[in-house]
Amino acid sequence: MDRKRLDQQFDFIKEIDKEKFIQRQTRLSDNVRRENDAEHAWHMAIMTVLLSEYANEKIDVLRTVTMLLIHDIVEIDAGDTYAYDEEGLKTQRERECQAADRIYALLPEDQQSKLRDIWEEFEAGETPEAKFAHTMDNLQPAMLNVVNNGVSWKEHGIAISQIMKRNAHTAEGSQVLWDYAYENFFKKNIDDGNIIDDSDKEN
Amino acid sequence: MDRKRLDQQFDFIKEIDKEKFIQRQTRLSDNVRRENDAEHAWHMAIMTVLLSEYANEKIDVLRTVTMLLIHDIVEIDAGDTYAYDEEGLKTQRERECQAADRIYALLPEDQQSKLRDIWEEFEAGETPEAKFAHTMDNLQPAMLNVVNNGVSWKEHGIAISQIMKRNAHTAEGSQVLWDYAYENFFKKNIDDGNIIDDSDKEN
Repeated sequence: MDRKRLDQQFDFIKEIDKEKFIQRQTRLSDNVRRENDAEHAWHMAIMTVLLSEYANEKIDVLRTVTMLLIHDIVEIDAGDTYAYDEEGLKTQRERECQAADRIYALLPEDQQSKLRDIWEEFEAGETPEAKFAHTMDNLQPAMLNVVNNGVSWKEHGIAISQIMKRNAHTAEGSQVLWDYAYENFFKKNIDDGNIIDDSDKEN
Repeated sequence: MDRKRLDQQFDFIKEIDKEKFIQRQTRLSDNVRRENDAEHAWHMAIMTVLLSEYANEKIDVLRTVTMLLIHDIVEIDAGDTYAYDEEGLKTQRERECQAADRIYALLPEDQQSKLRDIWEEFEAGETPEAKFAHTMDNLQPAMLNVVNNGVSWKEHGIAISQIMKRNAHTAEGSQVLWDYAYENFFKKNIDDGNIIDDSDKEN
């Protein structure tokens, strides 16, 4: 038994329990409390298993699932940055890199590199796996928002132009899922008055 | 776009959000609140990615991760059955099968079969993947309990004989992880007085 390696692995596994304390803006489907990062990652991992057939390019499902499972671990130190928080977004990258330096360093070197590489691949958003992961990351909270009749969009006064900017690359992971989501998530909630319709101003 | 198929898939994905409401006995590492099923599954999925090297037999990591991600979905209807609740354990299988019948039926038929098969494989515990998944399912809560100085064991007055019975098959998934856990999780907490030592009675 390589005791040191096992201790390092369990130190990391214990540390990431803290991801369960990081709250997001999205409310769960009972509209009682907000979702945390671990719940969000779990949900998207299952979505990937079920929806990978719609990826624009064939994806490695295990790599994509792993990417989604770990992609928010940096928020243990850096906190959650709301998708429409312009100030927070400016410092997000720096805060998250510092967090990655500390947290992944708990692991044995080979696994440090492996997980850090997968996280950097997610951040760069260039591979089919990273593109699909971003599609999941954008559509999962939108879906929960739809279940709750657009409560988070209403609470923050979100306009369709902001959603379109946030989702500029969502279709690059899956055109089918973007088309479905645009019709059933976003257009429906504009019609219902839950998303501000500023689309005229955009044209 | 196969609209009906996508609707079925998203009906299932929305339904399983309820797994986030199912509380377990285990406390999170801050000892403030108890863990829910989605958080538990997320944690074990990452553990599997990191610890699969210790499986007794080579495992399909994606299948094992998927198994752990979905294995508690039945608890949305059947509730969590505590590992040391003798009465609850008698009706657990029947309650969980009824839940599986309802919840997996939301999916398109091919995915119904696929996920139901993976869940039944977990339940049977005979494949290398199912054995390793059970190893994770037993060691993850023990690990959190250790972080919290054995609070759940103390709360329920758990004895080492009960833990050994519960873990009768844990080494079948990974002898290395069982040996590590016995030494660092269980033996340490007997020595610290957090687990009742009734091992003399057993002999």
